[in-house]
Amino acid sequence: MTDLGTVAIVGLGLIGGSLARDLAARGVRVLGGDLDPATLRAAHDEGVLAASRGPELNGIEEADALVIAVPVVHAPELLEAASPRLRHLRFITDVGSTKGRMVATAERLEIAPSFVGGHPLAGSHQGGWQASRAGLFEGARVFLSPTAATGEAALSTVRALWDAVGARVHVIDATEHDRLLAWLSHLPQSVSTALALTLAGESIRPAELGPGGQGMTRLAASCPDLWTGIALENAAALVPAIRALGERLQAFGDALERRDAKALGDFFAAGQEWCRR
Amino acid sequence: MTDLGTVAIVGLGLIGGSLARDLAARGVRVLGGDLDPATLRAAHDEGVLAASRGPELNGIEEADALVIAVPVVHAPELLEAASPRLRHLRFITDVGSTKGRMVATAERLEIAPSFVGGHPLAGSHQGGWQASRAGLFEGARVFLSPTAATGEAALSTVRALWDAVGARVHVIDATEHDRLLAWLSHLPQSVSTALALTLAGESIRPAELGPGGQGMTRLAASCPDLWTGIALENAAALVPAIRALGERLQAFGDALERRDAKALGDFFAAGQEWCRR
Repeated sequence: MTDLGTVAIVGLGLIGGSLARDLAARGVRVLGGDLDPATLRAAHDEGVLAASRGPELNGIEEADALVIAVPVVHAPELLEAASPRLRHLRFITDVGSTKGRMVATAERLEIAPSFVGGHPLAGSHQGGWQASRAGLFEGARVFLSPTAATGEAALSTVRALWDAVGARVHVIDATEHDRLLAWLSHLPQSVSTALALTLAGESIRPAELGPGGQGMTRLAASCPDLWTGIALENAAALVPAIRALGERLQAFGDALERRDAKALGDFFAAGQEWCRR
Repeated sequence: MTDLGTVAIVGLGLIGGSLARDLAARGVRVLGGDLDPATLRAAHDEGVLAASRGPELNGIEEADALVIAVPVVHAPELLEAASPRLRHLRFITDVGSTKGRMVATAERLEIAPSFVGGHPLAGSHQGGWQASRAGLFEGARVFLSPTAATGEAALSTVRALWDAVGARVHVIDATEHDRLLAWLSHLPQSVSTALALTLAGESIRPAELGPGGQGMTRLAASCPDLWTGIALENAAALVPAIRALGERLQAFGDALERRDAKALGDFFAAGQEWCRR
């Protein structure tokens, strides 16, 4: 694997923590930073970190590269505040679920040539260091969104980092990423939560559901702050997705009211056909 | 376990096939009937059936009990047509996802005292004998809906059957069952299909989804004929559930349009809170 040197990871949650584990297991020297002292201690005690740092990017001078793995609402501000201390890095990347504001922020900064936005599609309703694990990215898709100024060396090194942990890299424009992810990821999350609230409104408890219903409400357990941030960041792209699903449900409800066997049959058949593509 | 004698099961799909496996493994003599000769042959070759019968309840004279495990749209007609030949049975039950029409049909027949409607909450997007397995009902909820005339002996024997395969029995009025299941099961299925169609409308393929999105569209692969039947049978109860979810999505979309951080935060927080109940 390409020599990545010393990689600093700030934010040791599900994604940052799992990446730290995978990189450490491949002999990369990992510096870790996190707001939570217990997380830092655990990561250090498990032998994942060569050194523990606070959340303020202390000791970033020792690092060759930086992965920002904090929630999307905080990542651009962190990048902007720290950027004067990041000029020596070979690459700077992130792992947030939205890319538009982060890449736009990087483009206004001197570090733009070394910045590559990143987003591994490997999230879960479970978060935090305790949910992180080796091998999380095996076979997962990772979106990379360069800035207008990103250099070839930075992009190819970030690509090598994700290749090394088994992910499949897909380079995509940041705006197009956010539009696509509204459908691929933010819509399913929102629907799961809306379904949970609908069941809550009927005083139904999670334990009453069968395996199918449990699978449909699992994502509703995801971190509210994280998803509030993602929904706000990507509201412009998410609104049409929510409205499109609303129309499908409306049409299905109308067909039910008419007892329209043909329309209902077409509805379920088209769903199955899509799954088989 | 209560001696069940010889149990005939007509319809060896996911539910009927799994029940046949579990009963046979516990020493019950199982007679199997199915429209599909390959299914009958496979069930016989695997040693699950003491004897294979066609779908016409041939040889029902030898049986002490009958489990009707065909799709809900066909079950009441099958019961009605066969009922003159079922008078000697200790119990007759079914496994369909809706109970209203089936129980009402049984109540009009001479066999009403031996009939108990049944519904194990153990369905899956995968159906057929090939998806059936031993242990499917371990820990699953099973709803039992007696007729107005069901005798204590029939009910307690059907309860013993499900106890024997590890299910948790819950006795419920047929109409109340259908109202509840519209929310617990038919709504999640319909939403999964609606989400699949929404993604199909954007030319997104299943393989593009991450683990969360894949979990949310898994049910869309379910058998269209089965679900068209369930939706038609239970349309009256399902419409309000679909409309209630539509309203939740509408409100979420409106909050997104307003960039209402408070409303979005409350939405995701309430979903997580429900999951933790």
